[in-house]
Amino acid sequence: MHQNKIFKFIKKGIRLSNSIIPNSSKAKVKLGLAPGSLVFTGERKMEKAEISVIQFSQDTYQEIDHVDVKGVIALIKDFNGTTWINVDGLHDEKIVEEICTHFGVHKLVMEDILSIGQRPKLEDHSDYLHLVLKMLTMEENDTSVNYEQLSFILKGNVLISFQERKGDVFDGVRRRIKEGKGAIRSRRSDYLLYALMDSVVDYYFVILEIFGEKFEQIETSLLAHPNKSTLNKLHLLRRETLNIRRSIYPLREVVSDFERIEAPVVSKDINVFIRDLYDHTIRVIETVEVFRETATGLLDLYMNSVSNKMNEVMKVLTIISTIFIPLTFIVGVYGMNFDNMPELHLHYGYFMVLGFMGFVFIGMIIYFKKQKWI
Amino acid sequence: MHQNKIFKFIKKGIRLSNSIIPNSSKAKVKLGLAPGSLVFTGERKMEKAEISVIQFSQDTYQEIDHVDVKGVIALIKDFNGTTWINVDGLHDEKIVEEICTHFGVHKLVMEDILSIGQRPKLEDHSDYLHLVLKMLTMEENDTSVNYEQLSFILKGNVLISFQERKGDVFDGVRRRIKEGKGAIRSRRSDYLLYALMDSVVDYYFVILEIFGEKFEQIETSLLAHPNKSTLNKLHLLRRETLNIRRSIYPLREVVSDFERIEAPVVSKDINVFIRDLYDHTIRVIETVEVFRETATGLLDLYMNSVSNKMNEVMKVLTIISTIFIPLTFIVGVYGMNFDNMPELHLHYGYFMVLGFMGFVFIGMIIYFKKQKWI
Amino acid sequence: MHQNKIFKFIKKGIRLSNSIIPNSSKAKVKLGLAPGSLVFTGERKMEKAEISVIQFSQDTYQEIDHVDVKGVIALIKDFNGTTWINVDGLHDEKIVEEICTHFGVHKLVMEDILSIGQRPKLEDHSDYLHLVLKMLTMEENDTSVNYEQLSFILKGNVLISFQERKGDVFDGVRRRIKEGKGAIRSRRSDYLLYALMDSVVDYYFVILEIFGEKFEQIETSLLAHPNKSTLNKLHLLRRETLNIRRSIYPLREVVSDFERIEAPVVSKDINVFIRDLYDHTIRVIETVEVFRETATGLLDLYMNSVSNKMNEVMKVLTIISTIFIPLTFIVGVYGMNFDNMPELHLHYGYFMVLGFMGFVFIGMIIYFKKQKWI
Amino acid sequence: MHQNKIFKFIKKGIRLSNSIIPNSSKAKVKLGLAPGSLVFTGERKMEKAEISVIQFSQDTYQEIDHVDVKGVIALIKDFNGTTWINVDGLHDEKIVEEICTHFGVHKLVMEDILSIGQRPKLEDHSDYLHLVLKMLTMEENDTSVNYEQLSFILKGNVLISFQERKGDVFDGVRRRIKEGKGAIRSRRSDYLLYALMDSVVDYYFVILEIFGEKFEQIETSLLAHPNKSTLNKLHLLRRETLNIRRSIYPLREVVSDFERIEAPVVSKDINVFIRDLYDHTIRVIETVEVFRETATGLLDLYMNSVSNKMNEVMKVLTIISTIFIPLTFIVGVYGMNFDNMPELHLHYGYFMVLGFMGFVFIGMIIYFKKQKWI
Amino acid sequence: MHQNKIFKFIKKGIRLSNSIIPNSSKAKVKLGLAPGSLVFTGERKMEKAEISVIQFSQDTYQEIDHVDVKGVIALIKDFNGTTWINVDGLHDEKIVEEICTHFGVHKLVMEDILSIGQRPKLEDHSDYLHLVLKMLTMEENDTSVNYEQLSFILKGNVLISFQERKGDVFDGVRRRIKEGKGAIRSRRSDYLLYALMDSVVDYYFVILEIFGEKFEQIETSLLAHPNKSTLNKLHLLRRETLNIRRSIYPLREVVSDFERIEAPVVSKDINVFIRDLYDHTIRVIETVEVFRETATGLLDLYMNSVSNKMNEVMKVLTIISTIFIPLTFIVGVYGMNFDNMPELHLHYGYFMVLGFMGFVFIGMIIYFKKQKWI
Repeated sequence: MHQNKIFKFIKKGIRLSNSIIPNSSKAKVKLGLAPGSLVFTGERKMEKAEISVIQFSQDTYQEIDHVDVKGVIALIKDFNGTTWINVDGLHDEKIVEEICTHFGVHKLVMEDILSIGQRPKLEDHSDYLHLVLKMLTMEENDTSVNYEQLSFILKGNVLISFQERKGDVFDGVRRRIKEGKGAIRSRRSDYLLYALMDSVVDYYFVILEIFGEKFEQIETSLLAHPNKSTLNKLHLLRRETLNIRRSIYPLREVVSDFERIEAPVVSKDINVFIRDLYDHTIRVIETVEVFRETATGLLDLYMNSVSNKMNEVMKVLTIISTIFIPLTFIVGVYGMNFDNMPELHLHYGYFMVLGFMGFVFIGMIIYFKKQKWI
Repeated sequence: MHQNKIFKFIKKGIRLSNSIIPNSSKAKVKLGLAPGSLVFTGERKMEKAEISVIQFSQDTYQEIDHVDVKGVIALIKDFNGTTWINVDGLHDEKIVEEICTHFGVHKLVMEDILSIGQRPKLEDHSDYLHLVLKMLTMEENDTSVNYEQLSFILKGNVLISFQERKGDVFDGVRRRIKEGKGAIRSRRSDYLLYALMDSVVDYYFVILEIFGEKFEQIETSLLAHPNKSTLNKLHLLRRETLNIRRSIYPLREVVSDFERIEAPVVSKDINVFIRDLYDHTIRVIETVEVFRETATGLLDLYMNSVSNKMNEVMKVLTIISTIFIPLTFIVGVYGMNFDNMPELHLHYGYFMVLGFMGFVFIGMIIYFKKQKWI
Repeated sequence: MHQNKIFKFIKKGIRLSNSIIPNSSKAKVKLGLAPGSLVFTGERKMEKAEISVIQFSQDTYQEIDHVDVKGVIALIKDFNGTTWINVDGLHDEKIVEEICTHFGVHKLVMEDILSIGQRPKLEDHSDYLHLVLKMLTMEENDTSVNYEQLSFILKGNVLISFQERKGDVFDGVRRRIKEGKGAIRSRRSDYLLYALMDSVVDYYFVILEIFGEKFEQIETSLLAHPNKSTLNKLHLLRRETLNIRRSIYPLREVVSDFERIEAPVVSKDINVFIRDLYDHTIRVIETVEVFRETATGLLDLYMNSVSNKMNEVMKVLTIISTIFIPLTFIVGVYGMNFDNMPELHLHYGYFMVLGFMGFVFIGMIIYFKKQKWI
Repeated sequence: MHQNKIFKFIKKGIRLSNSIIPNSSKAKVKLGLAPGSLVFTGERKMEKAEISVIQFSQDTYQEIDHVDVKGVIALIKDFNGTTWINVDGLHDEKIVEEICTHFGVHKLVMEDILSIGQRPKLEDHSDYLHLVLKMLTMEENDTSVNYEQLSFILKGNVLISFQERKGDVFDGVRRRIKEGKGAIRSRRSDYLLYALMDSVVDYYFVILEIFGEKFEQIETSLLAHPNKSTLNKLHLLRRETLNIRRSIYPLREVVSDFERIEAPVVSKDINVFIRDLYDHTIRVIETVEVFRETATGLLDLYMNSVSNKMNEVMKVLTIISTIFIPLTFIVGVYGMNFDNMPELHLHYGYFMVLGFMGFVFIGMIIYFKKQKWI
Repeated sequence: MHQNKIFKFIKKGIRLSNSIIPNSSKAKVKLGLAPGSLVFTGERKMEKAEISVIQFSQDTYQEIDHVDVKGVIALIKDFNGTTWINVDGLHDEKIVEEICTHFGVHKLVMEDILSIGQRPKLEDHSDYLHLVLKMLTMEENDTSVNYEQLSFILKGNVLISFQERKGDVFDGVRRRIKEGKGAIRSRRSDYLLYALMDSVVDYYFVILEIFGEKFEQIETSLLAHPNKSTLNKLHLLRRETLNIRRSIYPLREVVSDFERIEAPVVSKDINVFIRDLYDHTIRVIETVEVFRETATGLLDLYMNSVSNKMNEVMKVLTIISTIFIPLTFIVGVYGMNFDNMPELHLHYGYFMVLGFMGFVFIGMIIYFKKQKWI
């Protein structure tokens, strides 16, 4: 079944989710605005922004959807456990502003949250952390990679996450919180942040696995019968690989910064988890690098295969031409209408010429065999 | 409408604003002069140099155009707010010298201001800062990128900017000062410098967006039907990308130096803005790098497409030749004028030969189909 | 005999042990699980997991196979010498968990041991060391490289090694322990770890030697008569080289870390051995780099050889065509059926035409010789 | 006139001043000699070595040519101002040795002065500085770049310069000393050294400007009609660029060392000049790098243009062949001499065949138009 | 005469001294042996190992050949001057072991001395230094580069050198010691070591000079008439360059370490010599890098030249075919045997057709001239 999905995938061709312009930041829209102006620069991907809150401690758990900002503030007040506020939909700049203002987040950070096209980064604003990631997803019935900007604000025991639209890779984390599995309920908001980052990175592996299969299919098809459509597919796949690379590459530094950070909101004992995350990140990046080299290698292979094939075709042309052009000349000679052509009147002249031509023919075949052209 | 503009853009071809010689520094002109000699090395881009002054504080605002140097000095005297002196047109070396001398600027700095072709840099001369940037612009009815050298002198509450000619990307900043929008009126000259740098960098995004669209058009056209004019366009676009890269690349270091600088004219609390500017700069540079890779990728694609197309053409030639050359030989045989050619006298000889040739024809078609050449 | 083996090797073609996806980590299986979940992500390569224990001191030696976990714990208790516990087969997650738990190993480390696809790394968990390596092997009657993940836990005088399956490169070490050869019996578990790492690295040289021979065979065949199958072989060899490189490259850092480590389980006096191991590692990596460059060089050579050969073929076509096409035209002229063609009635017209064509023929040959086309 | 010079330049071809062997160090000559042996390794470029001395202070100035070593020593004695001793011609090893010995210069430094092929470098021998540069010149009536090794010894208020031959880029400095222009007379020997270095670097810009024009000419000619001679020119220009790069690249480090040096002979207040020189050096190096990339870009353009042109030619061949080969077959059919060929006796047979062939001809033209081959 | 030698050199082709496998370390032989096992891994290059001793001080000098180990030990005892023990031939592992044991050299160092295939390195074992170099030689009547491993042990006033076979580049040093030339007799063993290293590096220049000449010959031949044998020569030369590079590259670090070393056996006052040696090393490495770039440049030139030549050939084919194929069609038309072909009976029909064909011919020539194809 999985095989099938992939097959459909390739068959449809690869629809490009990303343009060449890497961070289509609608530069013109923001031109001339003061720094810190809050304008959402992405595409509107859902109808209404939604806020959902999950609160838990070792023993308690509650999940509330469709809250408004006031409701959120009320929920946090006097709660000792960990609160995870998730905002889906950034086009409603007001909601983002209200929440951020309540938590004392700097204007420029708000601007970053709203500006699609940030590089992954980690900023330590002494009393809170600001983290930007790229969440890569591929939907079941879709064939292209979606790039979504994820922003986190970690302040005290509250973690706020901002997503461009509903639908994410955090369902596993939500289930673990709900069912109290793993260590997540017994830890704090910093561990929750780690768990969410880990989910994002884990999903990178899924994406890369799909890409690996695509590369293998292209390799197989190149080794068998290379053609132009394979070339275009390879070109687009390579471009998509570059896009993924750009989204993932800065993550290395982000996680490494996270490990070294000296912030009160991050406890020392999650360092062992961060180090593990760092290992995963390195592996993801290495894999992407391998894909880049693979793409280059396949391009070389393609070019060589094509020139090989052309050679084959060329050889056939040469051989046929080289054999028949001189023979055609010979028969042309005896098609001339001169009055005095003694050979024409020989009784076996025709057969002698046929024989001579047969001789030339066989001689050439032997010559070509010797030259290893056949 | 925007689409239209771009289309016209491509259609006109890309007029090159920059020659290959990156810093046409009129090297010969300056040869043998002492260091610190003040000679303007660029092209004269406007008629008369002009000085305009903007002065503002939290509550006051005045803008005076067409001032002379004495007027400027009078304006600054006893003014407590922030003064922005803008000089348009560097060919009037005297004006630059007088202003710089008044502010105690070093001779070599003056020389730098006048020498078009500086790399972006930040120099800390203890009591004043000297900053050089490249301002990239594309005019509405023009199709090429203009590179203009921008120099700033920041001393106390005075900021002096030097431009090669009238027209810049600072109108947004001027409006914000005038209307008192944003934080600009409540801050000092260091924030003003940041705001101007931010405008320059923001405009880079506009330029890059246009380039991204050009690259996409070229990609589309390469995937469909590659030809020589696309290749030349790609070559010029790639060269222009290299030019842009050279102008922007050193900016990273400049902004990073700005963040770390320990100068009395720069207050600590604008660091958060500089960091934000740094993020933007990194994104600009990354985008340019992506363009470089894209250009390389497109060149590969072009080469492969061309060799593919040639293959197609080749195949047609091969097939036609391979089929008809032997047939022509056969008809040549029966065009010979030998007295004794028994086949010629067979009643159905002609039709037998026609039939035989039909057989050869069909056999070859089948063979080529099998070889996947058709 | 060795020669023979290699020959067979090449003849069979190179069966690929590794897919392009470098770390086929079964990403989907683990998706949504909590960090630290123990799931084996590799292929099951043997039927039942087996534990074997070797215990030795200066004077004593015992080797016990097929122990269970309880047996292992009993053996270690009150033993003063060095104990080497070897676990073959990771699919039995329970065994791994029990042993690790007994030695106080962290959950995430257990997860790493079970997750095939780790990068080589060294982690210092203050009271124990965790080391991951890739063991590369090539079996006598097999032709592809096997990549096996090796994990070590070094705690006090106990060294635990985890392998994916039975069969390794440690037989030399086992013999030296048994026979008391070399310094191994007089030293502790840290030296044992070094000796095992040394065996793994030494075997890299064997693998590289085989690859070097393959590269030489391909070079020889490319210099003589390049063809498509050589190209495909070269492509696969290059890919395998990239795979090997990925497995070996991080080792440099691992060994370098090992040299600098300040852990109580590692005595200072094995530093001289580690430095020697470091030298070997550098040589291995350099050799792999040389292979990469060689592969690129051979690809260039191939492309050039192919285009050379095509040139040769081309030249033959040109020469034959260029000679006979004009001659065929001439004989065509005298094959026309016009009533009034005076030349036809000349008595020696035929011979004059033959002579003229001979003249043209020789003239062309001389021209081509002059142009160095023949 | 300048234009003309360049044109002549290109027309003559580029005579290569430098062989591929970068530092033709006459290695064999020196083989087996002790380190510090004084042997001149360059070509003798002038007849007799000459020493000239310039002495100046704020108020005094004298210039003496054709001095011998004793005269030099006499001049220096009891002189308080700055002395510049210039030695033209290194083949007279004795003169170099005598001067150096007088100033207490180390044997190895003397060897360096005489060994053409040094890399640019700065050595601090506590009581004197040793600086090596490459002076690049292009003479008015010559077309190739000359590489000359320049060595400086700076000790106290004496600066000694060693050149391979008469003729340099220092005339501007000499004039400024003589006429007392600029700051040079009021400063010491360290500023003099800076001024000379500055002259050398300024002349690099002249050389690079000429190269830039050459590159532009080649680009223009490549975009219009690429041919083999352009390719060879490009190859030689690229090689020359590599040579220049090798001569200039180490300068960056040299100037940077100069800025950081803590030697009594160098006063702190020339640091601002050195920094300016450093900026120039960076710009020179960047320009050379741009030339390298340009050369690569032009090579790609050339290759693509050539393959494009070949395509055009190919297409013509294909079309002509594809049209006429089948038609020739048809006329061949009716040239056969069978007794029984009914078509031949049709009254309008000939015209029907002509019509049929016209039909085939037009059909093919339409087909090719559709395929966009015409 | 020198010219002649080089010519012979190229003519013979380049016999490869080194296989692709860089360090043919006979990996299998050593597999499973304990670290520190003494096995010589190279080829036996001479019959019997020989020890020779040179002892000298300021005033005394003696040279003794064919000493055995006991004799060596006796010679050293109570000698105050410098002793240089040279061992030729490493296959006699016993001799190496005895000498090393006497001087207290570590087992692993002995193993390194015997293992051909070490990287150049410098190890400081507190009371002695261990230095490994590659000595490159080219014999007068041989055409390939020999790579020989040189190991040095420097302990107190004794320097031991180990060579694979008799014959080295040290004759100059030996002569200088014997004749008391230069500073060598007045200095100690550390200077002797420097002098030997200097000889090795000086000989690199000789090798590189020969390679430079080879590259120039290949360039000349490529610019004139590129062919396949030139390509193969270039490929092999490039490979040999890579081999040389690998042997020389680590030397940079070695010499740099030597300069910084703080060992009692190395006196501070030879630092100025080491720095000089460092400069030479950098120049050697730079030259090798230039060769790499040159090789790449030449390969590009070759590819372009070949495609150029192919173009020329192609053009001839096109022109001849394009001219004669249509003409052949025309004569074919009038060779048809239709009863009713009015043109055939025109009195000047034949000449009109000839004229028409002449017209077509000239028209095509003019067209091709216009297209710049001729």
